[in-house]
Amino acid sequence: MEKLKKYVSVKDEDQFYHQGAVELLVFNFLLILTILTIWLFKNHRFRFLHETGGAMLYGLVMGLIIRYATKASDVESGTVYECEKLKSGPSTLLINITNQVYEYQYKREISHHNVNGHQGNAMLQKMTFDPSIFFNILLPPIIFHAGYSLKKRHFFRNLGSILTYAFLGTAVSCVVIGLIMYGFVKAMVHISQLKGWEFHFTDCLFFGSLMSATDPVTVLAIFHELHVDTDLYTLLFGESVLNDAVAIVLTYSISIYSPKENPNAFDAAAFFQSVGNFLGIFAGSFAMGSSYAVVTALISFMHLTKFTKLCEFPMLETGLFFLLSWSAFLSAEAAGLTGIVAVLFCGVTQAHYTYNNLSPDSKMRTKQLFEFMNFLAENVIFCYMGLALFTFQNHIFNPLFIFGAFVAVFVARACNIYPLSFLLNLGRKQKIPRNFQHMMMFSGLRGAIAFALAIRDTESPPKQMMFTTTLLIVFFTVWVFGGGTTPMLTWLQIRVGIDPDEDLKTEAASQSASNLDKSTTKAESAWLFRIWYGFDHKYLKPILTHTGPPLTTTLPEWCNPVARLLTSPSAYSDQLKDDDTDYIINNDELAENCELSAHIPVPAQDKTGSTQATGKEDIHEGDLGLGGYKLQLDHTAGQPQLTSLA
Amino acid sequence: MEKLKKYVSVKDEDQFYHQGAVELLVFNFLLILTILTIWLFKNHRFRFLHETGGAMLYGLVMGLIIRYATKASDVESGTVYECEKLKSGPSTLLINITNQVYEYQYKREISHHNVNGHQGNAMLQKMTFDPSIFFNILLPPIIFHAGYSLKKRHFFRNLGSILTYAFLGTAVSCVVIGLIMYGFVKAMVHISQLKGWEFHFTDCLFFGSLMSATDPVTVLAIFHELHVDTDLYTLLFGESVLNDAVAIVLTYSISIYSPKENPNAFDAAAFFQSVGNFLGIFAGSFAMGSSYAVVTALISFMHLTKFTKLCEFPMLETGLFFLLSWSAFLSAEAAGLTGIVAVLFCGVTQAHYTYNNLSPDSKMRTKQLFEFMNFLAENVIFCYMGLALFTFQNHIFNPLFIFGAFVAVFVARACNIYPLSFLLNLGRKQKIPRNFQHMMMFSGLRGAIAFALAIRDTESPPKQMMFTTTLLIVFFTVWVFGGGTTPMLTWLQIRVGIDPDEDLKTEAASQSASNLDKSTTKAESAWLFRIWYGFDHKYLKPILTHTGPPLTTTLPEWCNPVARLLTSPSAYSDQLKDDDTDYIINNDELAENCELSAHIPVPAQDKTGSTQATGKEDIHEGDLGLGGYKLQLDHTAGQPQLTSLA
Repeated sequence: MEKLKKYVSVKDEDQFYHQGAVELLVFNFLLILTILTIWLFKNHRFRFLHETGGAMLYGLVMGLIIRYATKASDVESGTVYECEKLKSGPSTLLINITNQVYEYQYKREISHHNVNGHQGNAMLQKMTFDPSIFFNILLPPIIFHAGYSLKKRHFFRNLGSILTYAFLGTAVSCVVIGLIMYGFVKAMVHISQLKGWEFHFTDCLFFGSLMSATDPVTVLAIFHELHVDTDLYTLLFGESVLNDAVAIVLTYSISIYSPKENPNAFDAAAFFQSVGNFLGIFAGSFAMGSSYAVVTALISFMHLTKFTKLCEFPMLETGLFFLLSWSAFLSAEAAGLTGIVAVLFCGVTQAHYTYNNLSPDSKMRTKQLFEFMNFLAENVIFCYMGLALFTFQNHIFNPLFIFGAFVAVFVARACNIYPLSFLLNLGRKQKIPRNFQHMMMFSGLRGAIAFALAIRDTESPPKQMMFTTTLLIVFFTVWVFGGGTTPMLTWLQIRVGIDPDEDLKTEAASQSASNLDKSTTKAESAWLFRIWYGFDHKYLKPILTHTGPPLTTTLPEWCNPVARLLTSPSAYSDQLKDDDTDYIINNDELAENCELSAHIPVPAQDKTGSTQATGKEDIHEGDLGLGGYKLQLDHTAGQPQLTSLA
Repeated sequence: MEKLKKYVSVKDEDQFYHQGAVELLVFNFLLILTILTIWLFKNHRFRFLHETGGAMLYGLVMGLIIRYATKASDVESGTVYECEKLKSGPSTLLINITNQVYEYQYKREISHHNVNGHQGNAMLQKMTFDPSIFFNILLPPIIFHAGYSLKKRHFFRNLGSILTYAFLGTAVSCVVIGLIMYGFVKAMVHISQLKGWEFHFTDCLFFGSLMSATDPVTVLAIFHELHVDTDLYTLLFGESVLNDAVAIVLTYSISIYSPKENPNAFDAAAFFQSVGNFLGIFAGSFAMGSSYAVVTALISFMHLTKFTKLCEFPMLETGLFFLLSWSAFLSAEAAGLTGIVAVLFCGVTQAHYTYNNLSPDSKMRTKQLFEFMNFLAENVIFCYMGLALFTFQNHIFNPLFIFGAFVAVFVARACNIYPLSFLLNLGRKQKIPRNFQHMMMFSGLRGAIAFALAIRDTESPPKQMMFTTTLLIVFFTVWVFGGGTTPMLTWLQIRVGIDPDEDLKTEAASQSASNLDKSTTKAESAWLFRIWYGFDHKYLKPILTHTGPPLTTTLPEWCNPVARLLTSPSAYSDQLKDDDTDYIINNDELAENCELSAHIPVPAQDKTGSTQATGKEDIHEGDLGLGGYKLQLDHTAGQPQLTSLA
């Protein structure tokens, strides 16, 4: 008899596996549908619903089906059992039920008022992911890919503006949303909609910070496809990528802000501790990500030249690259930092150094691998967002709060883009034109990060209300703004069909045509960056990669023995082919060239069949893409770097 | 106060995430070490410790460190709590502890005597995977890759032998091991080592079935690297791949064999039910896997020609391919079949049909993606096997049982290979030579599948003893036999350094040299396969892929409208380039050609710098690789298929 019982329990266990299979099948099915739809859309050049919007729509439909077509089955759950012997929740719990011991694993703490949500449909419960899956599995590949595919030359040209939007803009957005929401919350308290929930200003700020993370996926996919003006693309891409990192750390800092006494009064000590936390976590994560990337670069560099060729085994190279990048994420998490931020800067640094050391085969493999993982993770998240509207069981729809959030999000975006652009334009010689500002205002979609931050904590009713509201804002912005991107580009007369490389060549041509003196590099606002660039080019690149000038020419003479040891043999021959030279804008020169270059015919535009008018003269005047640029010359190396454009 | 408490619990939760990060970091670290070691080994052409052996060694060392360098921390676990109210274990359990509700998730049922193993080190518990991770995450990519990379032409030439070894051989091995172990168990009972445990003959058979799964990884990696004789490679590869599927289904069938009354007496009804289960599950999984592959082929085919080019978006194609293959696995699991078997046949069928429809870019992408996943999964499993020796807490080392198992495994392998080879040689015109048989005997390593089957159930003491023994046998065979593969090949004078394509060309050349009449195809033993081949070539390939003759020529005339609709436009022009034609041996012709071909100089061997003597005359005589082959000509298409060898 005991044997029989055992077999029954084995079958029960199998039942558990099989249920997991059913849930994964649902996601697979959704993803397959999404892929087929994307293909259909791409085929018919239909751009009013982006793939992410499509994935969300399918998720929504599937959620509806699961919600109303499956029955409540698990009657037992929903009952709360008492246990007097336990003092705290252990990580594993052994329970003796009718003489059989069962092992239970700690999942989470739930509030008393959420217990009812656990009654009923087991399928709905199964379809609800653990929030940690988002942060530990789905987000890292997306963020890493974003960092890895950052177009460096254009990124560095606009670094100051991007950092301003990302740091200052996110802070502005967070505070503005927080203030507006606090007003709405006060109003809700006034008409007694909040039933005595605690809803402090910090909660409003928390909502503001998670709502400040703009999504790089949808708009940029369309921009990339249409080859939109490179500088607008870079500004938006850089902003939304860095802004994710800022918003994540900001949200975390606010969530651990714990004033000692009255939670509504301002506590300076706690505030500065939060600011310190923010800075510490951000800097720590940055350092962690970068140092892993440097280690990877060193390993790949050493393997390639000093001992033997790791590149003969591209699989090993790809594996190493993948594992070390993932380790950057895990190490940051293990150290109490933010893995997402670490993996972002790891990606940026890998693209800068390690990528150059890889064999051509490995370059393609890693690129395709990360592209593929990014693609899958992205679509899973958007499917899940659609699903969550119906499968999540503790939604709180509060019309006033939702209305307030919509207002707050748009006002905050406007307070972020327009004033900051005005300030930046004071310092920038090539202004950010009006139509770019409108486009940036319009492109403030909310997506995966906002959702992941909101779903992380859905215990208290205010947090549940925030989650519901976030979900609705994501739906609205992805469908309406995402779908409206192409018409908006036409309406704002923004250049499309631009090849970034052609763009740079044109600039170089216009530059040599105007016969500028090559050595008129003056001190300018980006001096800090210039110093770093020089250091990177002269020392880091030669040590970590095969590009750049040989160390023997850049280091002082007495370092020659060390320099010879560290320099790759290929550096001597390859120094003219430094493809990754980062172009730095010489703002002082730009003013002079702007008028000249604006009247030079641009062959790049005629080549790539643009579907749109390329803009009128007044747009040209202020257009970043047509500004004349000067290359940062490396005087020490004594080689004019203009050849690198070929 | 309540707020403060909440923040504390959020931090606790973060603590949980971070611990997960630490465990993953351990694995990442092990894998990085393994990759660096592999690279070192490959670089120094060191073949006495294969990468899998290396991964296992590192896992072992890490397990040792975790075991003895980390302290017991979780004092609470190990206590069993009583719960009278519950009747059975629900999937989620809500427990009220000091006025806070905690959610616990059902993990598994454990036996009373294992409760002590749960005391102590939390790190050890964390490092112990859920067995379902092996079956649902790590094994599928390995098995799919095995199926996907099956070299079809050589596989089909030896199909009969492979099926015999895989089905009959595994059954023989299972029964022999079962019988020998039953003898040892009886002896153990006699000297009262078993302390009254129940240990039936079915348990011995269970052990026999899981021990019968030979590992394709280690030996074949070495074979592949050395370019060992293609027919030996194919025999071993085909055997170990199919044998995994057989062993998995066999183990499952035995585990659900439940005689009604006395578990030691033979129950015919239960036995036949188990046989029925075996056949049903095997056939069902086969059908499930193949039909998913056919669906994928159809989608990729339709997209490629009928509507538009999915191949313009290789990412979508790869994604679709990946998701549908995974769905095959999940569907089989959800339907109560064996996902691993489904994914194996899905891989074989995908390689046969879908692969032909992919764009060159997608072909490479899918190949690299599956290769990469296979590589990672393989190394994780071998690392984990090393770890498990020290981290698994319920090992039972019984010297007599372990000794018995070693004896049983070798005797069973001998009873499998030699008698079956003898029987097969009676039917085969090109015999399986003695040295091949010895090599096959030697290559019976146990690896991932045996381990995964053994770890699936480690509740009762007999099962724990089996698990420990399996682990030791895996270690021994991987290190000793895996390391000894290269010396053994030299000792047995088996050809290495063979290019399979060159091999076939040589055969074709020797064939045309002997001026054979092309139409002397006689009926032979593989008639069933021949029928299927004809059907596949004439109807399935043209419908599902772009190769093969146009349907208009193969279907009867009255079907022409349908045929024209279904035929790809490229089929008319491409019919000469059918690269994937499966070569069928005409046994009757072989006898005549054998002597001729044995004396023709073989240029392939001289080209590829073999490190070994290519074998003496007596080996040549019986050597499969040198037999003359005749192509199966497609008379209907009217095109001599010899051109396909170019």
